[in-house]
Amino acid sequence: MGKALWWCLVLTCLLAPLPGDGLKMNLQNYCESWRMNVELHNIREFQVVPEECTEYIGKYVTSTQYKVDSQRTTEECLVYLSTSCNLKKDGFDAWIFDIDDTLLSTLPYYEDNLYGGRKLSVTSLEEWMKKGNAPALDHSLKLYNELKSRGVQILLVTSRKEHLRSATIDNLVAVGYYGWTKIIFRDPANELVSVKKYKSDVRKKIINDGYRIWGILGDQYSSIEGIPSPERAFKLPNPMYYVA
Amino acid sequence: MGKALWWCLVLTCLLAPLPGDGLKMNLQNYCESWRMNVELHNIREFQVVPEECTEYIGKYVTSTQYKVDSQRTTEECLVYLSTSCNLKKDGFDAWIFDIDDTLLSTLPYYEDNLYGGRKLSVTSLEEWMKKGNAPALDHSLKLYNELKSRGVQILLVTSRKEHLRSATIDNLVAVGYYGWTKIIFRDPANELVSVKKYKSDVRKKIINDGYRIWGILGDQYSSIEGIPSPERAFKLPNPMYYVA
Repeated sequence: MGKALWWCLVLTCLLAPLPGDGLKMNLQNYCESWRMNVELHNIREFQVVPEECTEYIGKYVTSTQYKVDSQRTTEECLVYLSTSCNLKKDGFDAWIFDIDDTLLSTLPYYEDNLYGGRKLSVTSLEEWMKKGNAPALDHSLKLYNELKSRGVQILLVTSRKEHLRSATIDNLVAVGYYGWTKIIFRDPANELVSVKKYKSDVRKKIINDGYRIWGILGDQYSSIEGIPSPERAFKLPNPMYYVA
Repeated sequence: MGKALWWCLVLTCLLAPLPGDGLKMNLQNYCESWRMNVELHNIREFQVVPEECTEYIGKYVTSTQYKVDSQRTTEECLVYLSTSCNLKKDGFDAWIFDIDDTLLSTLPYYEDNLYGGRKLSVTSLEEWMKKGNAPALDHSLKLYNELKSRGVQILLVTSRKEHLRSATIDNLVAVGYYGWTKIIFRDPANELVSVKKYKSDVRKKIINDGYRIWGILGDQYSSIEGIPSPERAFKLPNPMYYVA
């Protein structure tokens, strides 16, 4: 084969588009698309953050961007409350909050567990929760206090189990959350159904008790989806784990 | 006031935290949090992209990241189809596609309209649609063909109006989409209800006709939310406009 032809072949290979869609994707593109599709609820039931993306996810959840994204979510709750909710102020206007990564941050735990890159050990997570050292998410605390000051009843619905009750309450109060109307933990009878079903059933009881659920703030789709629906649901970002 | 005291005051001001949450946010943080909260469906019914973010949004929708994000969404459709759908192959397995910014891209139009920063003129958008020059979204075309090859019936449900029928069909075929089972346009009787209601009503009819809707791919929550629900819905990113 002549040298010219050989060089021609090499050049053709170098200049040819990539196989597939010809999309030149780098690791950051890949991890960002993973994260975005988790938030869009297109990727579901993942057990761990993909190994090659734990660094990317770690950077995000410890960034200013994560805080700004979350702050915007809580600000939208207030916009909605001020523009679209006709509060009756009869003691039955209610708002539901999830606890983990909604009111309290589990980030210190996940920092020691590859930001979701290690398969969840319930025992070790509960050990950590029992210490009661979870920090508040500042923007959530601000929303919590604003709702309280507007006379909205605050209902905390968590998938933490009953045996974590006192540690959780101590933790909440220590970082500034108090004055809620109800706090509901998962009892052992509920542990066989999905969190989505458990939380939906709790909402049914709450509505039967006469409350109007104006909104929910949660970081998991299982906290905000399912029937009965609230008037509006707000989803905080959380790419570290998935609760079904 | 002594010079030392004066300098002490200056230093105190310089070192003091920012007011509010002390969050040092720049324009990029702000625009990214706007985009993220649009995709999370926390921000709804926006009329235009905020003026200060049109450049940021323009950069995103013309980036590799937008393509990679969208590609990942369509790949997740196939993962779901291969792992969770027990197709009966009796001619009633169905998949619903939205058209604009799902199968066809309106990006060339929005490039001339500040990427969503200009309030929508239905007349000018429809003029553009009539030309039939909208390009295909490559990853969606790939999914479309894959579904077709697996014997899934393809149903196109669009909020484009009847008078755009022939231009739309010409456009679809020209870029590679053909072999669908039904294509449903909005007739004038439907124009008074929301797109979400119109699309839900269409799904009701489709189910009454005996189809099993395994999934929907759309870029708007109004294409995928509402009762009856499909088994799964997949949301493509689209921060340029909101359809209620």
